Amino acid sequence: MEIKELRVNGQRLRQSLERMATIGATPAGGVHRLALSDEDKEARDLFIRWLKDLELDVTIDEMGNIFGRRGGRNNDLSPVMSGSHMDSQPSGGRFDGILGVMGTLEVLRTLHENQVMTERPIVIADWTNEEGSRFSPAMVGSGVWAGALERNWAYSRTDRNGNRFEDELIRIGYKGPAPCEKWPVHCYYEYHIEQGPILEREQKVIGAPKGIVCLHWYDVYLEGEANQVGPTPMEGRHDALCAAAEMILKVNELPERMGGNLVSTVGEIQSYPNSRNIIPDKVHFTVDIRSWDDDQAMSAWKLLREDFEAIASRRGCPIKMEETWKVEHSPFDEKLVQRILNIADQLSYSNLYMVSGAGHDASYMNQVCPTAMIFVPSIGGRSHVEVENTNWEDCEAGANTLLHAIIGSAQES
Amino acid sequence: MEIKELRVNGQRLRQSLERMATIGATPAGGVHRLALSDEDKEARDLFIRWLKDLELDVTIDEMGNIFGRRGGRNNDLSPVMSGSHMDSQPSGGRFDGILGVMGTLEVLRTLHENQVMTERPIVIADWTNEEGSRFSPAMVGSGVWAGALERNWAYSRTDRNGNRFEDELIRIGYKGPAPCEKWPVHCYYEYHIEQGPILEREQKVIGAPKGIVCLHWYDVYLEGEANQVGPTPMEGRHDALCAAAEMILKVNELPERMGGNLVSTVGEIQSYPNSRNIIPDKVHFTVDIRSWDDDQAMSAWKLLREDFEAIASRRGCPIKMEETWKVEHSPFDEKLVQRILNIADQLSYSNLYMVSGAGHDASYMNQVCPTAMIFVPSIGGRSHVEVENTNWEDCEAGANTLLHAIIGSAQES
Repeated sequence: MEIKELRVNGQRLRQSLERMATIGATPAGGVHRLALSDEDKEARDLFIRWLKDLELDVTIDEMGNIFGRRGGRNNDLSPVMSGSHMDSQPSGGRFDGILGVMGTLEVLRTLHENQVMTERPIVIADWTNEEGSRFSPAMVGSGVWAGALERNWAYSRTDRNGNRFEDELIRIGYKGPAPCEKWPVHCYYEYHIEQGPILEREQKVIGAPKGIVCLHWYDVYLEGEANQVGPTPMEGRHDALCAAAEMILKVNELPERMGGNLVSTVGEIQSYPNSRNIIPDKVHFTVDIRSWDDDQAMSAWKLLREDFEAIASRRGCPIKMEETWKVEHSPFDEKLVQRILNIADQLSYSNLYMVSGAGHDASYMNQVCPTAMIFVPSIGGRSHVEVENTNWEDCEAGANTLLHAIIGSAQES
Repeated sequence: MEIKELRVNGQRLRQSLERMATIGATPAGGVHRLALSDEDKEARDLFIRWLKDLELDVTIDEMGNIFGRRGGRNNDLSPVMSGSHMDSQPSGGRFDGILGVMGTLEVLRTLHENQVMTERPIVIADWTNEEGSRFSPAMVGSGVWAGALERNWAYSRTDRNGNRFEDELIRIGYKGPAPCEKWPVHCYYEYHIEQGPILEREQKVIGAPKGIVCLHWYDVYLEGEANQVGPTPMEGRHDALCAAAEMILKVNELPERMGGNLVSTVGEIQSYPNSRNIIPDKVHFTVDIRSWDDDQAMSAWKLLREDFEAIASRRGCPIKMEETWKVEHSPFDEKLVQRILNIADQLSYSNLYMVSGAGHDASYMNQVCPTAMIFVPSIGGRSHVEVENTNWEDCEAGANTLLHAIIGSAQES
């Protein structure tokens, strides 16, 4: 059989995903498999068994990242890497992360059973704690590996119950002997569900994001004047929650006002004293702005800032605004992105050049080597929830695209 | 000296208030004297010592309410009662409640030192747990006494740390032997700070509320669709917090729209999952509507309900609305209210016929006997906060008004 006729086994991929979905399965059809939990350990143990079945060379590093290496004809050449993560959100879905790991495994199984030897070695990766929901922040395993985050700082992170990251890593037996630091990689692929509704809406099967949008986080603090609601007339009130409500709507209207590809959201709010008969005198809320265009995101915030100041002044509510986190947009390797679109064409999968609105381990890998991602549709655009879903045919299509992307890169001398 | 020339000792009243303000004093000049706390016990002990100095007949009932009785010429007649409460809000003020108790004490001291004998007995009352901030609900001591609340239910209420009301009452030694149930009272006066800015704004010293406004409480529950904020375009979002923000502004605009004397407030909000990068899919908030006119309050809610339904439907956020508590407006005894205005005139204190926006022990007493209140200005309209303040001259003016109101009622045969 010619290499270009090679296809993954969609049925086997489905079985792997379904088997993994039993680990931490939730009643409503989702998965609860938090980083460094017993469920995470169970998934890792199974994964390593599967890697060994393929006679891969398995390495676990001191952050618990798992690598399986398949030799090439020339093992002096840097490998092609592909992977994602196996941890999930609390009551999350059965595809986020695990699809990219099982997809790569299916690629390796396909190469194995067809005895396809590539020029370069191929490495499958499972990154520790991508979700960041048990131990903040997210993408910690790939972040330390890429040199963007400090290992000891990561070790010291604690969950809600005060358990340390490192202690939990040791507890589940995944603090490995290999140093967690980058080594030469030829290129990195990450296959993932889209987590948005664009592919579904455009009726496309494969998405190739040109990169990851910028991410600007702000924290807003308002002060008002607490008073008994009954005896306090409306005139002269300084109600911090009303000021916040106006601002939340401004954030919601911002993208339309900017006329561009921008999303802006208030996800978090706290109001004090939060008592039904006292006028709120302290409110904190967050603003999340994302755009492919960093300058547009900055102009948007400038506009918002002016609105916020006007509202705060009109309502007599002193305001404090803080820039909490700012990540510039991260463009992927244009040649790799084009390769994915071309392969999808060759395989007759409809496809879309798009952007990724979410961060991924690929964000950190993009700092180390040429990187690209493959997206498949999320039904209803839903993710991080138990109803998260992707058609099995789409899962197979993504894996076939990944197969030929990996082969293409692994044949490069 | 003629009775009508009688005046309280403003200096002594101030000393009593200042002495009481040392019990539970906060650094910022307020008072933290929660119901059935050690501070409450200390204040009660001192109060009883002062009552005994006046040779009053002291009774403590099984709810911890304290009564001091001064005999009259005809002890077969029902007494005139006057009082308020000595517990405070957490980090509350030095006047709320305690002014009415110390004001009545000053009246009794004035009668005592001037050897004024009244026709009817006079009873001073300190009601247990008016604030309701440690043990919910508020006005529990007067509520059980008036027969509006159940004693055993009140006993079973717990604070944030799981301490039972009855256990704490026993612990501080104030579960008294007398049954907590109403007995005949000729009339009830309560002297209190206004807790609003009206008297100050109108530059009046004495307020005589015609009664207490109605109180309607609602709970609103919204559902949205949680999604990762990055990959989810603005169109098609179902953001429960944005829907809530629109509704909060509707509540804020309601009084102006109704064109009447109405206040409406959102004091409490919870948003879920309350994570900065997830679209909120559940929001709960409260609505508090108060008006002298029950029908107006009902029409206002009807209007709001329609607005809420339209907003919820436009944003695709299912809504559930619950009526949580409804108390009709409570008009005081018109003759007593007029007496207070007349006395203020005679004493040359500027005065105002008004309404009370807050609930008081007088609300329950109003169900038992003819009742009226005397208000003095709250500086800046502030209350339930450490900066709560009232001028000493105003405190004295209120006590003089109370003195002559009590004498007038106590001379009635």
